[in-house]
Amino acid sequence: MDVRMANRMRELKASEIREILKLTQRPGMISLAGGLPAAELFPVERVEDVTKQVLGEEGRHVLQYSPTEGDPRLRELIAGRMNARWGTSVGPDDILITSGSQQALDLSGKLFLDPGDAVLCESPTYLGAINAFKAYEPQFVEVKTDNDGMDITDLERSIAANPKVRLAYVIPDFQNPSGRSWSLERRRAFLDVMVRHAIPVVEDNPYGELRFEGEPLPPLKALDAHGLVIFLGTFSKIFCPGLRIAWLAAAPALREKYVMAKQGADLHSSSLGQRQIAVYLDRFDLDADIEILRQTYRRRRDVMLRTMEETFPSGISYTRPKGGLFLWVELPGDVNARDVLAHSLDQGVAFVPGGSFYPNGGHENTLRLNFSAMSEERIEEGIRRLGRVLGEVMAERAGTGRVEALAGS
Amino acid sequence: MDVRMANRMRELKASEIREILKLTQRPGMISLAGGLPAAELFPVERVEDVTKQVLGEEGRHVLQYSPTEGDPRLRELIAGRMNARWGTSVGPDDILITSGSQQALDLSGKLFLDPGDAVLCESPTYLGAINAFKAYEPQFVEVKTDNDGMDITDLERSIAANPKVRLAYVIPDFQNPSGRSWSLERRRAFLDVMVRHAIPVVEDNPYGELRFEGEPLPPLKALDAHGLVIFLGTFSKIFCPGLRIAWLAAAPALREKYVMAKQGADLHSSSLGQRQIAVYLDRFDLDADIEILRQTYRRRRDVMLRTMEETFPSGISYTRPKGGLFLWVELPGDVNARDVLAHSLDQGVAFVPGGSFYPNGGHENTLRLNFSAMSEERIEEGIRRLGRVLGEVMAERAGTGRVEALAGS
Repeated sequence: MDVRMANRMRELKASEIREILKLTQRPGMISLAGGLPAAELFPVERVEDVTKQVLGEEGRHVLQYSPTEGDPRLRELIAGRMNARWGTSVGPDDILITSGSQQALDLSGKLFLDPGDAVLCESPTYLGAINAFKAYEPQFVEVKTDNDGMDITDLERSIAANPKVRLAYVIPDFQNPSGRSWSLERRRAFLDVMVRHAIPVVEDNPYGELRFEGEPLPPLKALDAHGLVIFLGTFSKIFCPGLRIAWLAAAPALREKYVMAKQGADLHSSSLGQRQIAVYLDRFDLDADIEILRQTYRRRRDVMLRTMEETFPSGISYTRPKGGLFLWVELPGDVNARDVLAHSLDQGVAFVPGGSFYPNGGHENTLRLNFSAMSEERIEEGIRRLGRVLGEVMAERAGTGRVEALAGS
Repeated sequence: MDVRMANRMRELKASEIREILKLTQRPGMISLAGGLPAAELFPVERVEDVTKQVLGEEGRHVLQYSPTEGDPRLRELIAGRMNARWGTSVGPDDILITSGSQQALDLSGKLFLDPGDAVLCESPTYLGAINAFKAYEPQFVEVKTDNDGMDITDLERSIAANPKVRLAYVIPDFQNPSGRSWSLERRRAFLDVMVRHAIPVVEDNPYGELRFEGEPLPPLKALDAHGLVIFLGTFSKIFCPGLRIAWLAAAPALREKYVMAKQGADLHSSSLGQRQIAVYLDRFDLDADIEILRQTYRRRRDVMLRTMEETFPSGISYTRPKGGLFLWVELPGDVNARDVLAHSLDQGVAFVPGGSFYPNGGHENTLRLNFSAMSEERIEEGIRRLGRVLGEVMAERAGTGRVEALAGS
């Protein structure tokens, strides 16, 4: 029997990435599509060890309901790590444990967005954030973004043109999907604008610790003197995603609103998962694990870029990220990455067409490549195949162009 | 810096239960307030055993991202259990794993409720559902409810008076907070009305398997020939809540909408938690565990009721639930349970005043008692103390009544 759904459901659709990921289950497929961390580097034995301890010493406690805010020791450890690493000055009471950063995105939409309100974002921006916010029926205002971050002139213009801007969503470090990072100057200038207009900022920082080269830059949260920035951190990319444990750091009054919203959303995150991570952090050196991730992903990025240089035809540009999991490719404006994907899947290589990362559409000539999930050998082979596909597409296009030119002459 | 919040945030407030539960941390407090399952009955050693196996055999898999729908084996086991126990005919593709039933409530609001829409509910109803739905700014239409379920005449009248009814939310088995269950006749009559008006029904069933006496009745889902019922089940009360693993069962087209909404809400529930439960169900006899819960909670209910009979003053009525975790007390109409709570906390006993369970307010003369979380000795002692407090309140009231009568004469 058909029933009436809420208006917001018109906007929601299944993620294109999820559909592509289903195709990557085919045997032999080289997937540069997802954003999976390297499972072969998960510290499985140490997690076993920690889990045995947690269940042995506090089994009843970790199988029971627990506070919405999250485990006190884990919040303390997270605050300490943030301050040591990023120069923030957050305390345990600024931290809320979330069920993945995806939940923090959903709660942010819930806190700040009425239907018709506007959310400022980079162009392109993270698909998961677009999907989370869409449930709250906002307009998306895409701000021009280059290799140094948001264009401040376009930002000012966008705010002037949109009186209903209620939230900004940004990923200043090794952005998904582009791999770009913001310069310090842009971070400061962006925050100045946000303060002037009292716009809260969700700073999504899943990749900040995965820097391969250069000096770390302070996150917006460390530069924020006005309590406007909600910092999202996660263990998914620096430890493992399967436990669904992430966090947000926000000024206490704002955090309290998030706590209330989370209470209605899932009461609390896994009690066991929180204690597993707290005890892991107490007993083991997560920073040493992260150093291995950094080295591994840097090598994979290098292989990807080197093979792209060797095999991609001319007329195609791409970013050279200094960290994170992704790089971003721009094809000539008249080439549709979805068509390229069809050919590429035939050759056993998957990627994500970039159009999905633009909430207002367009930019179908872009695509995202992931370099964290496959071995160097697979990446090299995948890029060689993709290079061949692109070579054919570009050759055919040149041919078609000639034919059209002839036809038009 | 103050920022503008979404309209819905005006409605959200911290749960009163959560505030009371903080008080129950005081040493020596006898808490009849929460809804915690008995932690001393959690099968901790078997969970340790299962967890060792899961991390040992599939560690990389359970620490990685996993599908939004949930683990295929767990969904298969849940469908099989539902069909065997409840006479439903659901398949694995009807099941979506959720992060607690609380998430299924939040997603239900997201799917069905626009601001100003109406949700039908029992009176009283579950506070966690009220809080979840409030984020979607509905009206709550409370339908008169007696010991056999919703009053069908009042239900028809309520629908006729409210053209914007878009959803019904009910707990037909051992309801939270009242402990009441619906008769078979009411279940059928209710569903007939829902079908006639094409109103989707969220059937929350966390307690159905915790029956102490009498024959099980079919859930609405088993009586539903039109795919209108979304059944919510959970491992929180029959296994343990700390892993945050629950499920919903809905017709495939509807389930697909829930999958999309969940994808935006938290991507997926804990991969490890799902596999822990699937392997537990494959290796151990959950039904035998549940039988122990049933016997334990029945004895605790019996002690609670017996002590209430012995110590409560006359003029106070209460339900005698045949299962679940809660019973419900009505004081004389002019006695405010929040005042009683203040006295009771002084005597080291906590409960939840009932007013919070009425979304439209009123009914401050009611309260909820939990009998699952404390030992029989503590329950007996707690009820004795509460009986004394109530005796004093009633005596004072009688005295005041006389004084007022004299003053007025």
